Amino acid sequence: MAYTTLLSFCLCLLVLFHGCFAQIDLVTNHHQDQPWGQPQQPQPRHQSQCQLQNLNALQPKHRFRSEAGETEFWDQNEEQFQCAGVAFLRHKIQRKGLLLPSFTSAPMLFYVEQGEGIHGAVFPGCPETYQSQSQQNIQDRPQRDQHQKLRRLKEGDVVALPAGVAHWIFNNGRSQLVLVALVDVGNDANQLDENFRKFFLAGNPQGGVVRGGQSRDRNQRQSRTQRGEREEEESQESGGNNVLSGFRDNLLAQAFGIDTRLARKLQNERDNRGAIVRMEHEFEWPEEGQRRQGREEEGEEEREPKWQRRQESQEEGSEEDEREERGRGRRSGNGLEETFCSMRLKHRTPASSADVFNPRGGRITTVNSFNLPILQYLQLSAERGVLYNNAIYAPHWNMNAHSIVYITRGNGRIQIVSENGEAIFDEQVERGQVITVPQNHAVVKKAGRRGFEWIAFKTNANAKISQIAGRVSIMRGLPVDVLANSFGISREEAMRLKHNRQEVSVFSPRQGSQQ
Amino acid sequence: MAYTTLLSFCLCLLVLFHGCFAQIDLVTNHHQDQPWGQPQQPQPRHQSQCQLQNLNALQPKHRFRSEAGETEFWDQNEEQFQCAGVAFLRHKIQRKGLLLPSFTSAPMLFYVEQGEGIHGAVFPGCPETYQSQSQQNIQDRPQRDQHQKLRRLKEGDVVALPAGVAHWIFNNGRSQLVLVALVDVGNDANQLDENFRKFFLAGNPQGGVVRGGQSRDRNQRQSRTQRGEREEEESQESGGNNVLSGFRDNLLAQAFGIDTRLARKLQNERDNRGAIVRMEHEFEWPEEGQRRQGREEEGEEEREPKWQRRQESQEEGSEEDEREERGRGRRSGNGLEETFCSMRLKHRTPASSADVFNPRGGRITTVNSFNLPILQYLQLSAERGVLYNNAIYAPHWNMNAHSIVYITRGNGRIQIVSENGEAIFDEQVERGQVITVPQNHAVVKKAGRRGFEWIAFKTNANAKISQIAGRVSIMRGLPVDVLANSFGISREEAMRLKHNRQEVSVFSPRQGSQQ
Amino acid sequence: MAYTTLLSFCLCLLVLFHGCFAQIDLVTNHHQDQPWGQPQQPQPRHQSQCQLQNLNALQPKHRFRSEAGETEFWDQNEEQFQCAGVAFLRHKIQRKGLLLPSFTSAPMLFYVEQGEGIHGAVFPGCPETYQSQSQQNIQDRPQRDQHQKLRRLKEGDVVALPAGVAHWIFNNGRSQLVLVALVDVGNDANQLDENFRKFFLAGNPQGGVVRGGQSRDRNQRQSRTQRGEREEEESQESGGNNVLSGFRDNLLAQAFGIDTRLARKLQNERDNRGAIVRMEHEFEWPEEGQRRQGREEEGEEEREPKWQRRQESQEEGSEEDEREERGRGRRSGNGLEETFCSMRLKHRTPASSADVFNPRGGRITTVNSFNLPILQYLQLSAERGVLYNNAIYAPHWNMNAHSIVYITRGNGRIQIVSENGEAIFDEQVERGQVITVPQNHAVVKKAGRRGFEWIAFKTNANAKISQIAGRVSIMRGLPVDVLANSFGISREEAMRLKHNRQEVSVFSPRQGSQQ
Repeated sequence: MAYTTLLSFCLCLLVLFHGCFAQIDLVTNHHQDQPWGQPQQPQPRHQSQCQLQNLNALQPKHRFRSEAGETEFWDQNEEQFQCAGVAFLRHKIQRKGLLLPSFTSAPMLFYVEQGEGIHGAVFPGCPETYQSQSQQNIQDRPQRDQHQKLRRLKEGDVVALPAGVAHWIFNNGRSQLVLVALVDVGNDANQLDENFRKFFLAGNPQGGVVRGGQSRDRNQRQSRTQRGEREEEESQESGGNNVLSGFRDNLLAQAFGIDTRLARKLQNERDNRGAIVRMEHEFEWPEEGQRRQGREEEGEEEREPKWQRRQESQEEGSEEDEREERGRGRRSGNGLEETFCSMRLKHRTPASSADVFNPRGGRITTVNSFNLPILQYLQLSAERGVLYNNAIYAPHWNMNAHSIVYITRGNGRIQIVSENGEAIFDEQVERGQVITVPQNHAVVKKAGRRGFEWIAFKTNANAKISQIAGRVSIMRGLPVDVLANSFGISREEAMRLKHNRQEVSVFSPRQGSQQ
Repeated sequence: MAYTTLLSFCLCLLVLFHGCFAQIDLVTNHHQDQPWGQPQQPQPRHQSQCQLQNLNALQPKHRFRSEAGETEFWDQNEEQFQCAGVAFLRHKIQRKGLLLPSFTSAPMLFYVEQGEGIHGAVFPGCPETYQSQSQQNIQDRPQRDQHQKLRRLKEGDVVALPAGVAHWIFNNGRSQLVLVALVDVGNDANQLDENFRKFFLAGNPQGGVVRGGQSRDRNQRQSRTQRGEREEEESQESGGNNVLSGFRDNLLAQAFGIDTRLARKLQNERDNRGAIVRMEHEFEWPEEGQRRQGREEEGEEEREPKWQRRQESQEEGSEEDEREERGRGRRSGNGLEETFCSMRLKHRTPASSADVFNPRGGRITTVNSFNLPILQYLQLSAERGVLYNNAIYAPHWNMNAHSIVYITRGNGRIQIVSENGEAIFDEQVERGQVITVPQNHAVVKKAGRRGFEWIAFKTNANAKISQIAGRVSIMRGLPVDVLANSFGISREEAMRLKHNRQEVSVFSPRQGSQQ
Repeated sequence: MAYTTLLSFCLCLLVLFHGCFAQIDLVTNHHQDQPWGQPQQPQPRHQSQCQLQNLNALQPKHRFRSEAGETEFWDQNEEQFQCAGVAFLRHKIQRKGLLLPSFTSAPMLFYVEQGEGIHGAVFPGCPETYQSQSQQNIQDRPQRDQHQKLRRLKEGDVVALPAGVAHWIFNNGRSQLVLVALVDVGNDANQLDENFRKFFLAGNPQGGVVRGGQSRDRNQRQSRTQRGEREEEESQESGGNNVLSGFRDNLLAQAFGIDTRLARKLQNERDNRGAIVRMEHEFEWPEEGQRRQGREEEGEEEREPKWQRRQESQEEGSEEDEREERGRGRRSGNGLEETFCSMRLKHRTPASSADVFNPRGGRITTVNSFNLPILQYLQLSAERGVLYNNAIYAPHWNMNAHSIVYITRGNGRIQIVSENGEAIFDEQVERGQVITVPQNHAVVKKAGRRGFEWIAFKTNANAKISQIAGRVSIMRGLPVDVLANSFGISREEAMRLKHNRQEVSVFSPRQGSQQ
């Protein structure tokens, strides 16, 4: 009976350790043959992060409600995110909501799915070039406040944030502000482990927001996540969750030159507003200003009424400037130089700036280190895709990146194929779902009847695709005889394969055979 | 009896988890002292990939026969490959054999051990600069086909291939074409895990070829590899193994603008030719052409009769050009720029271009990012060594790279020494064997009576060695007093140590004590 | 009873594998529900290296006595070192002691805590530009010896050493020479695993010195380290521990062109002097020379009496030169170019060159790739801090690096806060202790009554901090309204937070509220 028990235990272990040591059952059968202490059997590869056999389109798993919005996390433990080394989250910020200042140990790229807002990032050593006057309390004493540059957010913007840089976001629009973000925890810039971590500088965010939905006590987390599909909120933990709350109040008081009472306020221990707080006073972020320059097409903000610029920001530098910036940046070779003060963090993706456009098919807009140079340091890029009804995005593979795709509108079918010719994903996807296309895996997207839009985050500053069909495809590059012999088809058929689809990347829905 | 069972199970686990947790037996003895849930004992380092105590010269382990050749894989699970993070394989392509178009998620370097061939790589966005006319069917309709650049392969060539770039190889010579290849699965460019993966664009290669000899079902693989030394072939799996076979045929038809019948042909499900197929028609790859320019010494191909070039290829650019290319490439900083279109992938290693030559000893030819700039992106380099009978390659260590050595001719003795002064390898090696010299481990090679030749692949774009003996050795750089006191020898002996061997890297077999 | 046994075994496993599979107990409970062979449950993240909940200030754990000094290692298995991917050690070299020539597979940064010495590093291919005449045996035959450049060490120097470069150190001063060193085993340049390895070229160092205190036989090590706090010395192992001792003596003799008797001497098998040997002959490293140029303030050595320079060393190049060097280095893009021959390895940190100085608070001196360009290749930098009594180093976080802090003088309090606002360290530290501040974790240092000094090694060539208080802090960069709403304080309080502390990084001990 001990044997039976042992056997079932053995089997349970087999399941458990499958990732690491799938062949336990076999090897244990002849353990007596092993010389002690120095097993000569080759060890199996210790880790199989990307042995993906069946992907799923994913919804967020954890949701945390705050006073003025909510934060949702996709499950970091999903195989596809483990393979790609990324975390994925979504902020929904209500009107007048402020996402508290925070930073992460990994570079981040976010996309404004909906709404408008103000984004502020603080780089150490960069000048406080913006002035603002507060409307509120103006009768008391009108203070002039100086701070670092702000940028306006609106739907379609892609914003890059290097590791360790603090930022905050305020919804000054009329509707909800929705942001989806990729946090590249597998990036070299993240020297901590691959667990998501958000360091808040103020307030008392939920513990789950700080750790990306993960509980620090793993047992506790596991039991919860096995219970239900998605749990809400979380009981407030004792002690504040901002980084100041860990310091002794008297040391904090000394450091800031303030009294201990105020220092204790900074620690926000009894604050229950969460990560997104409501701006208390009826604070007005004005909509119209003195200077209008209509630089919208430049991909940059334009109107800053009371947020006047002291210096001419270089954010709208010409392309010349950008190229120079990149050059300078590279020479110094690290991610946090003085040039960061004048680097753009944001890129717009309007229809007018599409890189690929097919009036019958749709368009593709790419944001990479060529049009947003800071991405060189982040090693991330993005692709915004719009397919009209029933159009096809050319089958291709990502040569040098994973692609993490978030559906922003409509629906469509995505097929993903692994190295052994198996479809590891072949499903309809719709708004709000995330699916990872691993590096080198072949993928094709076809829009549904209502069209299909997505934002894809890619783990390379200049992610490249290699198309399988279309005018710039691999088929065009291969000699027709190689094609014919490889596929075992006639030369005429091979010629059709090479030339029938003349469009570049976005294919119109129906196409008669040409030529 | 339960205890006995448990003990033997315990012991079997000990063997199993040796890589991770070698001290299980000790720690389990006092587990009661541990507070549950939060073990305060420092965890051992989780992984000891390079704890190499005893290396072996390796032969291939898996062989897969195809219609017109065979593919052999060395065992990826070997400690030395796990430590170096590489996979190693050999293609033997018969006359008129075509290695099907494929790509891998890791950079690759291959060496032409024997024979001649044609190599085509397809970079997305690069122009179709080559024209060819097919001999076959010329009566039907002489089609002009355009495709990307080709390069001729012959014995001694080193060819570099970035991750995700598709390529194919055709044997147009008179004998078998033999290629050995290093796939640097541990390279940063590979964002998947460290398992070998080959993505075929056509045909129906064996599952084992796709996965480097690994079966996806690990249990199955393990049982097989423990049975015998090397198993042959593999039963054909159901479904095609090329990436197109994973797509739905109707979607494929739409994407290519072809009919569904042809789309199904592309999926090659019933193709049993394997990874290397015979060119069906008596296809002639001509040997003589119009333009002869005798650029052989330039390290590049010369004769392309019917494969006429439309544009002047920049492949034979002067050294000036190459330097410029490298400059340009670096500035953009990623591995897949437009400049790739004009970058050389191939470098020849004839005797005339050796970097080190000793008429009584042999020669060393280095292929690194200085003479093959694309290697900057691959972070790989190669060294071809030729030792005459009984000559010695200076004892040295690889400062910044692993060196994976494949013996191409003759035989010799190799000694490799680890940090604690133990010889982890001291054996005769011969043609066809592979041995890894890990970074910083001291190594010496001595040719046998028939001479000794090898190709070494190194995991750095500019791998450097530091010699222990010879004119540019560490001994020359150390003050004689430091030498004398370190070794506990006299100053005169130290002077002999510094100066007796005047040769640079390749030492003639016998040498009287000089000076 | 078998069940009981099994249960306790289960529990013991739970402890063991906690790092990997913390939820074993939970999952095993329902293993019957799992389909065999393909567990659909998401696997937990395989590794949690940086889940630091409670740090300790660390003393060295292993000490190895040699003939003329001792070497101490901190415990590599400590969580904080595992997280940072570093090893830490200290050499104490007695007067006339010579640390034997050796190299490591990882870049190293060391700091001269006390004493004076001579440092020699040997780069392959660099010229032997220094001449020396030995005093001893001058009657026999006055030999002129040529060797590579030397540099003088004195207290406060920071010295960088790339992976794989051999170096040696001689104490020619009047007191003990004490060096602390960070070995960045997690650096990309280290292609072996993250175990510390030191390869000695001569002598017979203790096995523990070669492996950083780790025994190769892990069982043995484990039992020892659990026994006591710190064990001394180690029985001499059989066989020499230098890399030459692993070669066959006859092959060694052939390689050097020496006789076998001398070759055997090189293997030093019966040498029991350890890693630091006494220079046998009363060797004089002269203190005064012909050429004095008073370049001390340049941060470089000046007096080389009998170590005359043949060529003008470029080590004291102007800043222009340095910039050029860096440019050249980057263009070639690898860490071992010819330019290394003229690159400085050393940087002084005198009070006069501090980057931040507050006469009432102290000073901070930074050594990074801007003033020591070789650090660009090592991806390491250093910060020397001096706080006067009761002064405060501004609370901050390291944006892009871990910071490994060694206390060199005095004592002080350090607080470190993790992402969830918990103090993972809050203790008094004193001379000789090491504490790791992980990336992005907030930290504050306050000097004790006797002042407080440290050297911090950082895992980035240009480590940046982001301050939480002070004139260049995050608070200055945030709009006052964001501050007020984030902390739930009034605008007036927010203004105090922004402006009360006007000092930059080093805060004087007491400060009345300004403004």
